[in-house]
Amino acid sequence: MKRREFVGGLAAATGLAGCAKPQADCAAQGGESVQTFAWSCVTSWPPKFPGLGMAVENLAERIERASAGRLKIKIYGGGELVPAFEVFDAVSRGAVEMGHGASYYHRGKVDAAQFFTAMPFGLNRAELEGWLYYGGGLELWRELYEPFNLMPFPCGNTGVQMGGWFNKEINSIDDLKGLKMRIPGMGGEVLRRAGGTPVILPGAEIFTSLQTGAIDATEWVGPYNDVTIGLHKAAKYYYYPGWQEPGPGLECIINRTAWDSLPADLQAIVEITCQSITTDMAAEYTNGNAIALQQLLNNPSIEVRAFPEQVIRHLKEITTEVVAELMARDPAAAKIGKAYYEYLERAEVNSRISEQAYFHTRKN
Amino acid sequence: MKRREFVGGLAAATGLAGCAKPQADCAAQGGESVQTFAWSCVTSWPPKFPGLGMAVENLAERIERASAGRLKIKIYGGGELVPAFEVFDAVSRGAVEMGHGASYYHRGKVDAAQFFTAMPFGLNRAELEGWLYYGGGLELWRELYEPFNLMPFPCGNTGVQMGGWFNKEINSIDDLKGLKMRIPGMGGEVLRRAGGTPVILPGAEIFTSLQTGAIDATEWVGPYNDVTIGLHKAAKYYYYPGWQEPGPGLECIINRTAWDSLPADLQAIVEITCQSITTDMAAEYTNGNAIALQQLLNNPSIEVRAFPEQVIRHLKEITTEVVAELMARDPAAAKIGKAYYEYLERAEVNSRISEQAYFHTRKN
Repeated sequence: MKRREFVGGLAAATGLAGCAKPQADCAAQGGESVQTFAWSCVTSWPPKFPGLGMAVENLAERIERASAGRLKIKIYGGGELVPAFEVFDAVSRGAVEMGHGASYYHRGKVDAAQFFTAMPFGLNRAELEGWLYYGGGLELWRELYEPFNLMPFPCGNTGVQMGGWFNKEINSIDDLKGLKMRIPGMGGEVLRRAGGTPVILPGAEIFTSLQTGAIDATEWVGPYNDVTIGLHKAAKYYYYPGWQEPGPGLECIINRTAWDSLPADLQAIVEITCQSITTDMAAEYTNGNAIALQQLLNNPSIEVRAFPEQVIRHLKEITTEVVAELMARDPAAAKIGKAYYEYLERAEVNSRISEQAYFHTRKN
Repeated sequence: MKRREFVGGLAAATGLAGCAKPQADCAAQGGESVQTFAWSCVTSWPPKFPGLGMAVENLAERIERASAGRLKIKIYGGGELVPAFEVFDAVSRGAVEMGHGASYYHRGKVDAAQFFTAMPFGLNRAELEGWLYYGGGLELWRELYEPFNLMPFPCGNTGVQMGGWFNKEINSIDDLKGLKMRIPGMGGEVLRRAGGTPVILPGAEIFTSLQTGAIDATEWVGPYNDVTIGLHKAAKYYYYPGWQEPGPGLECIINRTAWDSLPADLQAIVEITCQSITTDMAAEYTNGNAIALQQLLNNPSIEVRAFPEQVIRHLKEITTEVVAELMARDPAAAKIGKAYYEYLERAEVNSRISEQAYFHTRKN
């Protein structure tokens, strides 16, 4: 089967010609005449990074298999074709057809997008999925991205993350003062107001910064990913839970023009596969985190600790302020935030008597 | 597009002829020659029942759309083609190609299959998915079903269920004695040993039995489904959590001969769509339960209550005995149970510092 292949640079140079004018070609099975598509997908992840990066590889592999090779997607790690945090722009302007990342990376550009990844003390994975797929969240997300010529699809979730690795004990809110910590997004803003210094660093630089003492602490993802980049060798205290990211959902974004060029069956395959990856990535994390955590708990040079309740309460109060300011200054954030917090209020009551009550029951 | 259509009765009569000898036919788009398949899927659910039944409708609709009509699946509610609890046999012997239900319904026939739905005090949804997709669980499941010529696919999850509706207060383990309750599976066996009388009733008979006092209590699913069949009008006390079903996973089973007759792309579409339904059903429940629970909490004639800790501890002790006996008498259950409980032991520690710790943090 002959297929027009666009390598990254060419795709970037030719824009969406590859999907706007797909080649009618002869497929292997049955000799039928079919349209084939070769897309590029840029990501915010190190190539084939466990969880985040592997999920995109799985996405492409599944779509190719389900479409019998009619839609081939070439994946680029962060920085390979465009920088990790320029995925949104690259897909929006049509340099590539697809991207995978997290909507809260677009903070400062589309501030309201943060609600669709995770908010400190916000919806967990199950609740976020309830909101997005059945509670009107996805419609709000699509509306928000429409001016950027983008279609967002929920695509993966890490589950509750960890609070992070610290080389200083956090016993009270005073210990946050002066703390230099790698923590992006809303969580970083909350730390800043608590007297700390949030730093933004790409994954590849975190280990060295922590080891040399350039930063006192860092959050990354959770045991599975943190062990991969060696954070357990650079800090002693591993705090939980990840109040700042209680079940971040990832996004697959598709250029609207590219999306519209797909026949209905390929659109269905893409949409369904993205939703399958949401389960699959969460399962990979649940499995990988449990294994990595066991190793960490057996490591005598590490202490796995809960944040003190006083610290959590303080961070929560600051979060309320930060969110209120965001909603006051940004009309889209006001609209989406209102829907999000109404959903949270109701979902939380249900989680309390189901998931939360069950955990309590099982432990006793 | 002409397509060989098998209505239920015909499919049952002709066995798998429809998929073993698919018709080469002319598809609408492009005039290519393609194989089309028309399958029947029997289920254990009332037709189009919210959650459980709708998920199968969604499964069929998505597969048809993603395959551009090459695989059409006609869904039958429980009792429409075969009785609700004969899905396993019907698919196994090839009367129909596909079924949707729960593996713990095959208790007494394939006892070890229970582990793949839910065990009292066992894996919750996230943990079950970690085990099935990344922890070796699905391989064990496929091995168990192989002698029955069946391929199982995880397909849906309700999340933690509720403990049930009671017309008697449960204040101590003595209140379980003599309790006549509709509760199937392992949960029922546990209740029996606690001095109660477990009853098995199909969904359609539960309401009347509870209202007339033929039973004192019943569990069904959770707020979303329980309100649909009106249980809140027949009992006063709504107990949580569902210790007996902490995140039951549903199954899509496919006759192996039918499965093997599909080309690789249709196999991929089926497998991916089943996994997408796992997310989708859970999202439907999370959303629907939260809405229905709010209505119940606003209803002054209902009391939503936690089981007393003493009762939970007692039920947990009995569960340990029942599971040990199952594993002692059934070699397949011994093998699968060993893998299941090793997984639970590790996963539980991870859940404690992630999901569970987060719930605690958010509440305080």
